[in-house]
Amino acid sequence: MSKAKSTYKTQLRALQIELVKAQAWAIESGQKMAVVFEGRDTAGKDGTIRRVVEHQLIRALRVVALPKPSDRDRSQWYFQRYVAHLPAAGEWVLFNRSWYNRGGVEPVMGFCTPQEHQLFLADTPAFEQMLVESDIKLVKLWLDISKHEQAERLDERRKDPLKLLKTSPLDAEAQKRWDDYSNARNEMLTRTHTATAPWMVVRNDKKKLGRIEVLKHLLQVIGAPKTSKKIGATDPDILFPFSLEAITDGRLES
Amino acid sequence: MSKAKSTYKTQLRALQIELVKAQAWAIESGQKMAVVFEGRDTAGKDGTIRRVVEHQLIRALRVVALPKPSDRDRSQWYFQRYVAHLPAAGEWVLFNRSWYNRGGVEPVMGFCTPQEHQLFLADTPAFEQMLVESDIKLVKLWLDISKHEQAERLDERRKDPLKLLKTSPLDAEAQKRWDDYSNARNEMLTRTHTATAPWMVVRNDKKKLGRIEVLKHLLQVIGAPKTSKKIGATDPDILFPFSLEAITDGRLES
Amino acid sequence: MSKAKSTYKTQLRALQIELVKAQAWAIESGQKMAVVFEGRDTAGKDGTIRRVVEHQLIRALRVVALPKPSDRDRSQWYFQRYVAHLPAAGEWVLFNRSWYNRGGVEPVMGFCTPQEHQLFLADTPAFEQMLVESDIKLVKLWLDISKHEQAERLDERRKDPLKLLKTSPLDAEAQKRWDDYSNARNEMLTRTHTATAPWMVVRNDKKKLGRIEVLKHLLQVIGAPKTSKKIGATDPDILFPFSLEAITDGRLES
Amino acid sequence: MSKAKSTYKTQLRALQIELVKAQAWAIESGQKMAVVFEGRDTAGKDGTIRRVVEHQLIRALRVVALPKPSDRDRSQWYFQRYVAHLPAAGEWVLFNRSWYNRGGVEPVMGFCTPQEHQLFLADTPAFEQMLVESDIKLVKLWLDISKHEQAERLDERRKDPLKLLKTSPLDAEAQKRWDDYSNARNEMLTRTHTATAPWMVVRNDKKKLGRIEVLKHLLQVIGAPKTSKKIGATDPDILFPFSLEAITDGRLES
Repeated sequence: MSKAKSTYKTQLRALQIELVKAQAWAIESGQKMAVVFEGRDTAGKDGTIRRVVEHQLIRALRVVALPKPSDRDRSQWYFQRYVAHLPAAGEWVLFNRSWYNRGGVEPVMGFCTPQEHQLFLADTPAFEQMLVESDIKLVKLWLDISKHEQAERLDERRKDPLKLLKTSPLDAEAQKRWDDYSNARNEMLTRTHTATAPWMVVRNDKKKLGRIEVLKHLLQVIGAPKTSKKIGATDPDILFPFSLEAITDGRLES
Repeated sequence: MSKAKSTYKTQLRALQIELVKAQAWAIESGQKMAVVFEGRDTAGKDGTIRRVVEHQLIRALRVVALPKPSDRDRSQWYFQRYVAHLPAAGEWVLFNRSWYNRGGVEPVMGFCTPQEHQLFLADTPAFEQMLVESDIKLVKLWLDISKHEQAERLDERRKDPLKLLKTSPLDAEAQKRWDDYSNARNEMLTRTHTATAPWMVVRNDKKKLGRIEVLKHLLQVIGAPKTSKKIGATDPDILFPFSLEAITDGRLES
Repeated sequence: MSKAKSTYKTQLRALQIELVKAQAWAIESGQKMAVVFEGRDTAGKDGTIRRVVEHQLIRALRVVALPKPSDRDRSQWYFQRYVAHLPAAGEWVLFNRSWYNRGGVEPVMGFCTPQEHQLFLADTPAFEQMLVESDIKLVKLWLDISKHEQAERLDERRKDPLKLLKTSPLDAEAQKRWDDYSNARNEMLTRTHTATAPWMVVRNDKKKLGRIEVLKHLLQVIGAPKTSKKIGATDPDILFPFSLEAITDGRLES
Repeated sequence: MSKAKSTYKTQLRALQIELVKAQAWAIESGQKMAVVFEGRDTAGKDGTIRRVVEHQLIRALRVVALPKPSDRDRSQWYFQRYVAHLPAAGEWVLFNRSWYNRGGVEPVMGFCTPQEHQLFLADTPAFEQMLVESDIKLVKLWLDISKHEQAERLDERRKDPLKLLKTSPLDAEAQKRWDDYSNARNEMLTRTHTATAPWMVVRNDKKKLGRIEVLKHLLQVIGAPKTSKKIGATDPDILFPFSLEAITDGRLES
């Protein structure tokens, strides 16, 4: 095993041990947390979530990945089907894609009207503020990758028989509409990044580094009293709060 | 049958016929409506709802009267269990008591903390605005009665064996805490009456008059194209939009 | 008011008072009850249910009238969407049409395959036995009307603007396929009438008489200790347990 | 990497590739499958499920691990809360523990009455037959381990900080009540092993061998047309249908 690989495994294990202890505390103390995993296709959402979930108590930790809305769903209040999955006391909920579908794939692919898109951007800060005020720790993670890296991952995916189920007709659009997705991302992050519910950007071209920083960040947010002090700070080259400058100075890929 | 009684029956029947036609139109056109029925104990919520529902298509019209929240419910986002019942296309939902429990019975009886009460009052306008923006016709009805009338109705209720199931230990508090309930009502109406989601006050000491006006108002809000023009305007002595003056000029009971 | 009408009202009121007391007892003692209301179109299901429900505690008494199944529903275990509504402790559930759709309207109108129909008839006794063994009082009521009476009621319905929402394209089929419906009924009653979950037939051409007998029967099944002894026995000319003879001797309409 | 380990990884990968193809087919053809994973504490349920799920489409494959029933749940029909999770067309559902709680942990630990236990054993065959008749592929897996192996795994679990959340006060009982659990298992398998819903025993002291056989068996049951013929037959020393002889000849641990 290479040294880098071995370091990763050691770090990952140490963080997962802390996360296990943290959940035991969260269950006892009734902490509620909702984590939103967003990012372009192949950004690393599934893989990151898998490392978060791996040793946790699944009875108190739901991963929510909603299927396409039915016609009835589509006629309801947009947030309604997500609200049904919000955490109760002692529960953590991970959203693998979330209400932010309407900030990215839906407007880019034409699955919602421009009016619905704008309404979503206007409503989301108020919606999220209510969740935070009701004592839900809300973490919003934007996993960011470069166009080149996405191209490689899509290519790999096509070739890997284990990833057959992950391929979809939308894959072809991810690269073709790269700029549209960048613009949608910029507008979404800009308009829904608030003091109460900030976006954290994760530069995820090197996904192992990204996973380590996500785990650190979650541990900080959870704030269990017994979390080891050796965990250390997150690396601001990998994970940092969104800001407008990050668009212009190239820390967000374009 | 007295003349007044016969007039009431005739009017009620005519309005119910219009409501039946209106629902046929709402189902076809996909209209969504949520009606909140609020008011003190014995204010006439059940009876009014019964006249609204009587001839409607129950498959597209739900009456929602939620039981006491479980411990798990109580630990969630306050609005969550109400959101689950919001209407889809072509549906009407009548809330027999609603999220406004936290604006009245909960603070008065000490079932929520003062902080939760204040948070509720602050959040509700934003919450309701989102519902309205998602094309839900939101009607909020405050059925208002006088202290004397409530005393009589509570008395009647105690004596009527058919109303055995409506009596509850809270009945005794309704009169005892009359002023607390008045104050809670005033604060609630003042802070949650908005241009997008206004409160309509229904002076309901004479409940038959109240029912007639509620039916008229619902027909106006629904706005089905074929509603008979003979329905006429609502009577502003019985049903009117809330305003601060209504507290001071005695149109709201104290 | 005619004497017959006045007697009906007096009787109805007395029975409803007993039912109110019975529910208070059921809630306290945790009794569960499920009542299936079945019968041809216009047989009187809605009207009977309304009299049962009128003064009861709606928070512990659900009326379940399921909409057409979605495609997803249709692909599941047939009983699944009904099971979701079965009563918990202290609850009564009234099914306005039920799983027995598959014993009547579905096979007659071709909404299910003959195989599905047969499977349903074979499975139902075992399904219901499990419910009864789990301490659910299961009451199955077949409201029976004559062809002539149905014709009149359909006619009335067409003319009454308050019944606009009750008319449906299926109405025309009710008379046209009268014999098919009779045959389906006979097979259904014969194969699903069991000792643990018997069918009660209600001769309902005179619907007021029928309602009175249904209320009496429910009170007997509930068996609250304080039910007045004056209630008396049910009238076997109106309400009686199904038997094969009832088909041949004309007590069931053909 | 040792040769055994490398063979395992190669085999696992090949089977997972087949399972990925099989799910693509199941989604398209609308196949429904429910898999019950049962076994004593530490028998390997979680680990086996993880390998089954690893590369599958999570939107069409639910893992159901129900929390302790609430008081309301407990008062309902026992199967009700499981029925809510049965698969619709194109869905696979894996039950990590299932309704068979009432055949093992509940009677052994005194969480149900002997009557409830017996009723469960009597009802289950009829319940499962209905599921199978409704075109659900029902797979029931009993993961079997020896007393010695369980002792070692419990010991490991206590020492491994990553397994903190898996430890529970019930762990201590697993060894102490080993014989009670054996007897409950024997009665449960004997009485609920039917031609339509047979139990498959998985000798799982060597859990990697067990996982391989479970994957093979699932592929056989699914029967996707393109499953590679190289998969081969299951090994009857590891996975075999339950029979009474398996109790007496020692193939089931005691």
